[in-house]
Amino acid sequence: MFPLQSASKKVASPDRGRMLIACPDGPGIVATVSKFLFDYGANIVQSDQYSMDPEGGMFFMRIEFDLTGLPGRVSELERDFADIAERFRMKFWFSLASVKKRLAIFVSKEEHCLLELLWLWQSGDLPADIAVVVSNHADMKGLVEPFGIPYVHIPVTPDTKQESERRQVEAVERYGADCIVLARYMQIVSPRFTELYANRMINIHHSFLPAFIGGNPYKQAFGRGVKIIGATAHYVTEELDGGPIIEQDVQRVTHRDNVDDLKRIGRMIERTVLARAVKWHLEDRILVHHNKTVVFN
Amino acid sequence: MFPLQSASKKVASPDRGRMLIACPDGPGIVATVSKFLFDYGANIVQSDQYSMDPEGGMFFMRIEFDLTGLPGRVSELERDFADIAERFRMKFWFSLASVKKRLAIFVSKEEHCLLELLWLWQSGDLPADIAVVVSNHADMKGLVEPFGIPYVHIPVTPDTKQESERRQVEAVERYGADCIVLARYMQIVSPRFTELYANRMINIHHSFLPAFIGGNPYKQAFGRGVKIIGATAHYVTEELDGGPIIEQDVQRVTHRDNVDDLKRIGRMIERTVLARAVKWHLEDRILVHHNKTVVFN
Amino acid sequence: MFPLQSASKKVASPDRGRMLIACPDGPGIVATVSKFLFDYGANIVQSDQYSMDPEGGMFFMRIEFDLTGLPGRVSELERDFADIAERFRMKFWFSLASVKKRLAIFVSKEEHCLLELLWLWQSGDLPADIAVVVSNHADMKGLVEPFGIPYVHIPVTPDTKQESERRQVEAVERYGADCIVLARYMQIVSPRFTELYANRMINIHHSFLPAFIGGNPYKQAFGRGVKIIGATAHYVTEELDGGPIIEQDVQRVTHRDNVDDLKRIGRMIERTVLARAVKWHLEDRILVHHNKTVVFN
Amino acid sequence: MFPLQSASKKVASPDRGRMLIACPDGPGIVATVSKFLFDYGANIVQSDQYSMDPEGGMFFMRIEFDLTGLPGRVSELERDFADIAERFRMKFWFSLASVKKRLAIFVSKEEHCLLELLWLWQSGDLPADIAVVVSNHADMKGLVEPFGIPYVHIPVTPDTKQESERRQVEAVERYGADCIVLARYMQIVSPRFTELYANRMINIHHSFLPAFIGGNPYKQAFGRGVKIIGATAHYVTEELDGGPIIEQDVQRVTHRDNVDDLKRIGRMIERTVLARAVKWHLEDRILVHHNKTVVFN
Repeated sequence: MFPLQSASKKVASPDRGRMLIACPDGPGIVATVSKFLFDYGANIVQSDQYSMDPEGGMFFMRIEFDLTGLPGRVSELERDFADIAERFRMKFWFSLASVKKRLAIFVSKEEHCLLELLWLWQSGDLPADIAVVVSNHADMKGLVEPFGIPYVHIPVTPDTKQESERRQVEAVERYGADCIVLARYMQIVSPRFTELYANRMINIHHSFLPAFIGGNPYKQAFGRGVKIIGATAHYVTEELDGGPIIEQDVQRVTHRDNVDDLKRIGRMIERTVLARAVKWHLEDRILVHHNKTVVFN
Repeated sequence: MFPLQSASKKVASPDRGRMLIACPDGPGIVATVSKFLFDYGANIVQSDQYSMDPEGGMFFMRIEFDLTGLPGRVSELERDFADIAERFRMKFWFSLASVKKRLAIFVSKEEHCLLELLWLWQSGDLPADIAVVVSNHADMKGLVEPFGIPYVHIPVTPDTKQESERRQVEAVERYGADCIVLARYMQIVSPRFTELYANRMINIHHSFLPAFIGGNPYKQAFGRGVKIIGATAHYVTEELDGGPIIEQDVQRVTHRDNVDDLKRIGRMIERTVLARAVKWHLEDRILVHHNKTVVFN
Repeated sequence: MFPLQSASKKVASPDRGRMLIACPDGPGIVATVSKFLFDYGANIVQSDQYSMDPEGGMFFMRIEFDLTGLPGRVSELERDFADIAERFRMKFWFSLASVKKRLAIFVSKEEHCLLELLWLWQSGDLPADIAVVVSNHADMKGLVEPFGIPYVHIPVTPDTKQESERRQVEAVERYGADCIVLARYMQIVSPRFTELYANRMINIHHSFLPAFIGGNPYKQAFGRGVKIIGATAHYVTEELDGGPIIEQDVQRVTHRDNVDDLKRIGRMIERTVLARAVKWHLEDRILVHHNKTVVFN
Repeated sequence: MFPLQSASKKVASPDRGRMLIACPDGPGIVATVSKFLFDYGANIVQSDQYSMDPEGGMFFMRIEFDLTGLPGRVSELERDFADIAERFRMKFWFSLASVKKRLAIFVSKEEHCLLELLWLWQSGDLPADIAVVVSNHADMKGLVEPFGIPYVHIPVTPDTKQESERRQVEAVERYGADCIVLARYMQIVSPRFTELYANRMINIHHSFLPAFIGGNPYKQAFGRGVKIIGATAHYVTEELDGGPIIEQDVQRVTHRDNVDDLKRIGRMIERTVLARAVKWHLEDRILVHHNKTVVFN
């Protein structure tokens, strides 16, 4: 039997915090933010930044810091930082490294992406709680439940689509999930749903986007005779396969590979790409701006 | 000064031949062809084949063989093989490894792909004669002529397009080139021209096709926020960037890379991909079927 | 619960055979072999060959063919081919694509390589029967048995090494396994054992061999400050990490990655590399010559 | 004729500066340094840092900033920063992005690495002045001089090694070069020489170090039957092929590739890897600590 709980080998210190910032670029941002943290007694252990264009673009920053007693001081930090944020017109987020995000994983009939996440989670390589698995099929119930993870089967038909989605949202909320992973979930979700989980719903598309948008991308790739295939993890937006790309990877193929071979090779790429994207999301490494991502990895 | 002649280090034996075959699949092809060559006294040194589908698909084969006195016996071989070819409804080609193909390289203002080919040629790594470089600009005359290669400058304007193309074909023929490489030649060629050099005109497109067809692919890639960029070498057909793909390769990029960075990184990919595709063409490694390539490499 | 049986989606036709040949190079081999198969009524569906050096080297060949009633005719084929084999001093092997090889998988405490093989097997992507899992620890019993696979726990201590190995061989034989996969099995096996399973025992070494032979390769890699790490699958020979290499792959790392990160990244490479090597072995794609492999893939 | 001067398309602003810092880790470093720059009126446009281990390890930082009138204020900056540096026991370096480093390129008989650097330099993609090319052979004089670059031929024999090296150092100094690139220079340099240019002498080794140290690495790789070959750029130290690794890359090979093929494929890798390493050195992206590099790229 699989162990019922993730034996995460690396437990983050409760005093480890993360800070994300996005604002118009300008002088003094780094100095001001780092002084703020220093005056608080925080020690910066990692800091990444990106200026789109020092003159007139956006500025993005991610800081990891240690601060004694952090769990009890987050709202104080947020309140005290508000002045600085206003001055620089910043959006900012504080988070605790020790508080795991809770995932809802959506699947249909292909299990490889789900299995990869379960496997990483079980090895302690996915710093998350898997709150629930939701599927439009019952097939994977027996695979998921031995992990001690609830499995919610919500059939979806053209007629019941709206009602099913209502039940899906309800399940996600009931199990307290704060982000959704579409792990080869083969249904299109409504704009209302994507809006609700904006920048918190990750999909894996089985092509090297923007090539081969939509259905049967491996068949499309075979038809076009490409020499490399790929997969793309992206945040879901209203536009089909059009959301901000988080990660992509590829693998070489040849004329000898038929559609089934492409699918088989592709499964390996999909697993890897989705796992990386989810991990970066969980570690607060991704900022979204104008349908593109800044990934501090 | 650059040496005026390619010092090709590896001279193919005059007795080394290549044979390419394409036909509907069926029993006995390999046995018949290999017996034919054996009875002739030829020794097979390399053989590759590909069956699309043993029941009802196409069959492709490439053979390298040694045959004493080959240069004087090619037409005899072709004549004697005709019976077999008819029986199996084969298309077939014999060629001499020692007879180099003659390239016409077309360029505009970007020199990196041209330089890569010149450099490989000069190192003896490109088994070809470079018959002529044709350009719609005069810029690279001083770069090309020290290599001892003629440079033909044919300006192209919207008004003179047809007349320019006539002069281009004339130049290619005058210098006895049998294949054309569009090495970042930034003009669209007419269907008449592509038809004339069908499966003998190679283009490098600076994207991972079929993503970002047409102009400014790096700008398009930047706009879409892809995490990997690529380049594609393909035979030119009537359809823009739609011909049979010969080779592709990619490189990772990040949010830090602006359009200029993508161009710079892309130049390295374009050089490599084009060089590989041209080399395979020169070595008779490519068969085209239904807008896709079989590459025996 | 996991399904108890592999649901291999692709069942090979009983009439599909494979033939492997190794012999000194010389004229007429391809013609003779292909004529032999043709006269038998076999249809060649795939053929690969490799000449080390047409003048005086070795010649290797792999053929896939269809022959009606093959399962009942293999010994007849072998007998009739013996004359040809003698004439060309060939080693040759016939096998049935429909007869799956039987794997014994050896593990210690790391589960990722085992899980990858189980997962591929369960998806039908590993054309084998998993006959038994053998371990020097009891840890993975609960993971393996739900798959319906026997788990044999044989403790190994310095004192009992010889006796343990005797019991291991016994287990492998009892369950009818014909090849052994050391899936991060952290014990050195004796020359007697490797001899017994020569070219049938595959190990995954967690470095890019021949760099970092022996223990703690990730620690060694970290110490040396390499920018790329890798994994190597090879047949086991008497020489530690010195056997014929089947497959390698690599991944980029940076100064930010500590030893634990290298291990985590490495696990992904190890899984992939081992799975490929095992698959090629199962499909009779590998020939060994002078401590090197010819892989027809 | 090649243009005699590098037409560097991207001219760095004279006000753009870079700062490198290495010190024991501790609280307040980022805050202090960024406040220092802010108080000076500098605007940080890029900042990267790396903590080996927040408790007790080293801390490394690279900052790019804009400061009006920087070229006249560097010594003032250095003087004023000295207090901070002392407090945190920092090593630090300021440099001007607009002041190009001057390279001395050493070559023997293989030209591909030299050509790659010349080509990148000529395209404006290598932000350096090439001060001189030094060779133990006269062969490449005709290739180098049309670029307007001095070529110094200093023969090296076992007897004259010491005297030759004296003349090499003299040439490097006479032409004002501040770093040396061994672009497939096939002589071992003395500890005295490497000491003199510590962390300023880059070598390209034609293997994936630490595999295949020393001579004929492609022959060694062929002998071992590896499935991937590589190249390594590193700073030269007293230990042969043992210095801090800056960059590595690899390419897949197969059993079909003989030693000459490995050399040909390897040349492409060597060119790319060396070019990247040199570029990062020129842009002050590399810090060396305990025979390992921190590369902020």
